[in-house]
Amino acid sequence: MPTFKIQGWGYEEASLTQEEYQALDEFWGPFLGVDGFDATPFVTMDEIELRAPRVAPPTSLAALCTEDKRERATHAYGCSFRDNVQAFARDFSNSPDWVALPKTEDDIRALLDWCADTGIAAVPYGGGTSVTEGANMPDGDHPGAVSIDMRHFDKVLEVDETSRAALIQAGALGPGLEAQLKPYGLSLRHYMQSFPMSTFGGWIVTRSSGHFATVYTHIDDMIENIRTVTPSGVMESRRLPGSGAGPSPDRMMLGSEGTLGIVTEAWTRLHARPVHRASASVRFADFYKAAEAVRMVAQSGLYPSNCRLIDGNESRMSGASPDGESLMVLSFESADHPVGHWLDRALECCADMGGVAEREGGEDERRAGQAGRWRDYFIRAPYYREYFTGRGILNETFETAITWDRFPTFHAAVMEETQQVIRETTGMDGFLSCRFTHVYPDGPAPYFTWRTLGRKDALREQYDTIKSATAETVNRLGGTVTHHHAVGRLHRPWYDKQRPDLFAAAYRAAKKELDPNSIMNPGILVDS
Amino acid sequence: MPTFKIQGWGYEEASLTQEEYQALDEFWGPFLGVDGFDATPFVTMDEIELRAPRVAPPTSLAALCTEDKRERATHAYGCSFRDNVQAFARDFSNSPDWVALPKTEDDIRALLDWCADTGIAAVPYGGGTSVTEGANMPDGDHPGAVSIDMRHFDKVLEVDETSRAALIQAGALGPGLEAQLKPYGLSLRHYMQSFPMSTFGGWIVTRSSGHFATVYTHIDDMIENIRTVTPSGVMESRRLPGSGAGPSPDRMMLGSEGTLGIVTEAWTRLHARPVHRASASVRFADFYKAAEAVRMVAQSGLYPSNCRLIDGNESRMSGASPDGESLMVLSFESADHPVGHWLDRALECCADMGGVAEREGGEDERRAGQAGRWRDYFIRAPYYREYFTGRGILNETFETAITWDRFPTFHAAVMEETQQVIRETTGMDGFLSCRFTHVYPDGPAPYFTWRTLGRKDALREQYDTIKSATAETVNRLGGTVTHHHAVGRLHRPWYDKQRPDLFAAAYRAAKKELDPNSIMNPGILVDS
Repeated sequence: MPTFKIQGWGYEEASLTQEEYQALDEFWGPFLGVDGFDATPFVTMDEIELRAPRVAPPTSLAALCTEDKRERATHAYGCSFRDNVQAFARDFSNSPDWVALPKTEDDIRALLDWCADTGIAAVPYGGGTSVTEGANMPDGDHPGAVSIDMRHFDKVLEVDETSRAALIQAGALGPGLEAQLKPYGLSLRHYMQSFPMSTFGGWIVTRSSGHFATVYTHIDDMIENIRTVTPSGVMESRRLPGSGAGPSPDRMMLGSEGTLGIVTEAWTRLHARPVHRASASVRFADFYKAAEAVRMVAQSGLYPSNCRLIDGNESRMSGASPDGESLMVLSFESADHPVGHWLDRALECCADMGGVAEREGGEDERRAGQAGRWRDYFIRAPYYREYFTGRGILNETFETAITWDRFPTFHAAVMEETQQVIRETTGMDGFLSCRFTHVYPDGPAPYFTWRTLGRKDALREQYDTIKSATAETVNRLGGTVTHHHAVGRLHRPWYDKQRPDLFAAAYRAAKKELDPNSIMNPGILVDS
Repeated sequence: MPTFKIQGWGYEEASLTQEEYQALDEFWGPFLGVDGFDATPFVTMDEIELRAPRVAPPTSLAALCTEDKRERATHAYGCSFRDNVQAFARDFSNSPDWVALPKTEDDIRALLDWCADTGIAAVPYGGGTSVTEGANMPDGDHPGAVSIDMRHFDKVLEVDETSRAALIQAGALGPGLEAQLKPYGLSLRHYMQSFPMSTFGGWIVTRSSGHFATVYTHIDDMIENIRTVTPSGVMESRRLPGSGAGPSPDRMMLGSEGTLGIVTEAWTRLHARPVHRASASVRFADFYKAAEAVRMVAQSGLYPSNCRLIDGNESRMSGASPDGESLMVLSFESADHPVGHWLDRALECCADMGGVAEREGGEDERRAGQAGRWRDYFIRAPYYREYFTGRGILNETFETAITWDRFPTFHAAVMEETQQVIRETTGMDGFLSCRFTHVYPDGPAPYFTWRTLGRKDALREQYDTIKSATAETVNRLGGTVTHHHAVGRLHRPWYDKQRPDLFAAAYRAAKKELDPNSIMNPGILVDS
């Protein structure tokens, strides 16, 4: 098992190489006008000071709880920009008092009872990859906080090959659950950047989006049932392929971000592993024409597995297309039938909008081509964040969704207003790009990336200024504050503006039934 | 505008013809061993006695409310078997005291305020086609009950051709909304048996399923946002093509069956009208082999628009296939591309399971073929119910969903136990058939029809015995008590067994926030 890093993204063993550092320096030095960055070193365990635990578990729970320094430190933060800034500042003051490692639902029940009896916050912890501070400890005057790590719930408990479905424990990491499904020729195929170190349960409570650009994008549409240990007891829905019996209990849990209880297991649909593929990358001179092509494909009923659009800035920066054209990464896959006809028709849509396609042949060619280069960048990109932050480079990605009719205006305004606040905050133009991660028949999910040179002594304040402005823009123009990164503590102010007030009132009341002592991830989604 | 019937299904103008009566007699007389049925005549307005209204609206609302006898009588019942029995018995004792016909949201607010102030039940009314008693008045000691008919909310308010979406008022009937969409070349294509006289709002609050057998089956997946007038105020979600921001507010309203407020309008996705079609009917000697073929197609990623499987009993009875083979009705449609390749591959799946296909050519051939004959029957079938009930023939359909791994056992047990309770109750074997209305990759939605000769003096009791037994069977074997007919008053006892208790507690608490005086459709889904 590789070592999960104290600071930043992923595993020690996958840290950036010297070659990557050099390539990053070569791109970003000239771009930001910096000749040799001043890099703050990563924090080391020796530099970290933790407060003494404010509470102690009862004897009966002592074996489940650890105050191990490394555990407490790694459970203090996820992977947001602000998390990284705090880590570079050697500030781990708001670490959990204890990290709990339950092995059974009885363990979870006992832990939640302890928290309810003493008013300690119970913060469910999956893979620690939240970029929205969804598993950080609550601020304020809590008497204590326990991070409840689900790592021992890592099994695929049952596979139903006939229905193509499996019962999976919530703490299973992406690669672990896929390894257990592989012997059956089945796959959840729910790949996102955090796939190697995020959990099935985390995907459920954050309504994550995965591999598929169309149809089965959100985990919501894969779930057959959910089992949750709440402070009021176990809630388990019936396993069904579809139902119209009242509002869906599962949809209450999907997106609940640990506020209602701890999801322990769920039945999910699976896919047969694809054996047929057809892929192409399509270049467009004009981004909005490319977006029109995406719209045509999204409305065609062809349902590509991949239909990502990468704008010129992003395709240049990622190395996918050095000449800065917009690039559509388009692919179809199937376990059942050759998909050449599907790609043919999708490429006709692209050609109508001036797209120039390069069809990819076998697996090798696919990986080596533009789409492959972009894929490599996609997987690697989150590791770059600590490169940026340690060098005083402000950096963030934010994702949203908007209907097609509003997209061009929305995109232009977000681009313009983001550059404007970057200029006002840092005195320079920043890097700014947009891609589509998922597309619906009625609109895309645009994903924006921005980077600019900040001041090391004011990184957090500068970030907050720019982040607030972009979230305000998205909110004002009718987008969602998050499409798949979740709400967490980071997006809460804009989530509060976006969701109906009466829904918040209803949700608070529902939460009070399941979590009467308001111990579950306090401060997330609603105030208690 | 045709005349909505006092009793039974649909419009006076579409009542059964003499030829249909004769054909029904010719089939059912010999089947049930009856030589000349004793047909109770339909109720006439003269025979109906209504109690005097228990309450009177305040002067300010008098213009919105009517005590017109025909209005009150038609709002007393939906289209369940028991509703029909009551109508044949000339029992309209539990009619609403008033029928309200609001024209604006302000009207609705004022009506709900009146109900809240006086404790009167507010029962939202769409098209009156509930087969589960979802819009009937509450029993018990309510001081009064108002049926709030949304017929004046019948407009398509806005069409977004780019995103293929529209803002539609909740009271729009199927044909009315389609007529308003037609000039744009767009369609909701949400066709079900009740399409001519059910409403968009009714579809939303009952999680209805429509035309499409795969992918976009439930209205749930079409909805972009929902606007609802609740007793606590207006709740409106943001219009989005997709989102991961907390649990979906829309999914709380979808399936809420009028218990949280009155849905007034919603943005919904639309489809371009198809121009390409490819259809076939496929005959199978063995029903379970046919089901396997359906599973292959459902898991293929081909996403047919229609993939209905009709068992031998149903295909014989409906006239679709007189020799009693199982019949798959399979079709693909697209506004974008010819779909012959899709059908080719689906037919290969069918052939693997022994299916013999008859490909259909143009529109005429399609309507004349087996699939067309079944389609005619499908649209007409609900009108037969009053034929049956008036002749003492117990008749019911019930629909469910189950995963594929459990389907064969489930189907065999439902068929056997249903026949058994029919025998025990009536002393004879009944007619019993099964079809699939919708199919998911992980399981079908089987739809059972049963008919048998009852005793006119005990129809309700005999029905309740058989209905309870079949619902118990479905519940015991893990199916859902309803896939698209909704819960209503009819399915409530088994819904209570199916949904998690903690979900009911959470939902009750949420309802209390939106409906503090418990006036909204009391007795539906939860007790207040």
